[in-house]
Amino acid sequence: MSDDDRHREKMAKRKAVQDAEVAQKTIEKGLLIVHTGPGKGKSTAAWGLMLRALGRGWRVGVVQFIKGAWDTGEKHALKAFGDQIDWHTLGEGFTWETQDKARDIAAAQAAWAEAERLLADESIRLVILDELNIALRYDYLNVDAVVAALQARRPDLHVVVTGRNAKPVLIEAADLVTEMGNVKHHFSAGVKAQEGIEF
Amino acid sequence: MSDDDRHREKMAKRKAVQDAEVAQKTIEKGLLIVHTGPGKGKSTAAWGLMLRALGRGWRVGVVQFIKGAWDTGEKHALKAFGDQIDWHTLGEGFTWETQDKARDIAAAQAAWAEAERLLADESIRLVILDELNIALRYDYLNVDAVVAALQARRPDLHVVVTGRNAKPVLIEAADLVTEMGNVKHHFSAGVKAQEGIEF
Repeated sequence: MSDDDRHREKMAKRKAVQDAEVAQKTIEKGLLIVHTGPGKGKSTAAWGLMLRALGRGWRVGVVQFIKGAWDTGEKHALKAFGDQIDWHTLGEGFTWETQDKARDIAAAQAAWAEAERLLADESIRLVILDELNIALRYDYLNVDAVVAALQARRPDLHVVVTGRNAKPVLIEAADLVTEMGNVKHHFSAGVKAQEGIEF
Repeated sequence: MSDDDRHREKMAKRKAVQDAEVAQKTIEKGLLIVHTGPGKGKSTAAWGLMLRALGRGWRVGVVQFIKGAWDTGEKHALKAFGDQIDWHTLGEGFTWETQDKARDIAAAQAAWAEAERLLADESIRLVILDELNIALRYDYLNVDAVVAALQARRPDLHVVVTGRNAKPVLIEAADLVTEMGNVKHHFSAGVKAQEGIEF
């Protein structure tokens, strides 16, 4: 048998396996997606999902729990989509920036109130709760109440939660959990955060 | 000392450590970024980076080595950015879809020729080589030649390479490598790939 024929046979088998796997998956539902772990890409992958959803003509709701004070490239880009995005930045920066626990708790609670409004908005098909895991980790919000609210959402509503140290009860409730691992980081080589790449 | 004071003191120390770390990072350079691993989010995080770069007014070049035949939400969304994006889809689907090795090699080489053109285009500040790792894994392209070309790029040009099974020589050459790990996947629960989320 020639090399080409072997390749064709191997790939035909692989295609049969793939096709059979795809055929078994018949359920359609709104997904609860969690991006966690110490590596880069947790929020960035959420913006990629947002772009995909916007391209399908969906309305998307976003609440930023932590990074609100930053001027980010993604925020500038959103202008192109106008009313398709309902974006709220309620965090005032990482908690060590403010050093005021009462203020951080109040900011997290205001952000969560906005999240509840977006979850109830039937014109929205994807809700991104950026850095919610940080607010949960510091117990600024009650994780059981948050998970219960996420589980009580409309069956076709997709939700993405980002931030390192996702709580086990949230992972348990999620449909899709990706852990971003840090294999290599340019900060270790003295390279600074770069405009257009990191913000 | 009150709970609030303890919090303030702890966070002030943390802020001092953060600020000192940030101050040490002074190098600015174009980054070679790799998104690899078996989990979701490799291409999606690249689209998030693209959105951030577009928001900064940059031109972005994209070559899709594999998934070209798919009709994706992100492709629809790009219309909003017009000439800011130079997008090329040269792959015809995963290699088990075509089952024709010679055709796949020709497609990979045509995609790489397009990538070289984008790398040389001085109006472009970010180049995304989506699923290049798949073409390298099957040896459709010579990894040493590809890595040499990436290392010879303009010093301020950012490049993102996606796809599982990144080759060690590429990881060695990269500034930032994130491994997307699959903690939990809805396919295992019989849920199908969802429009607006996965494509």
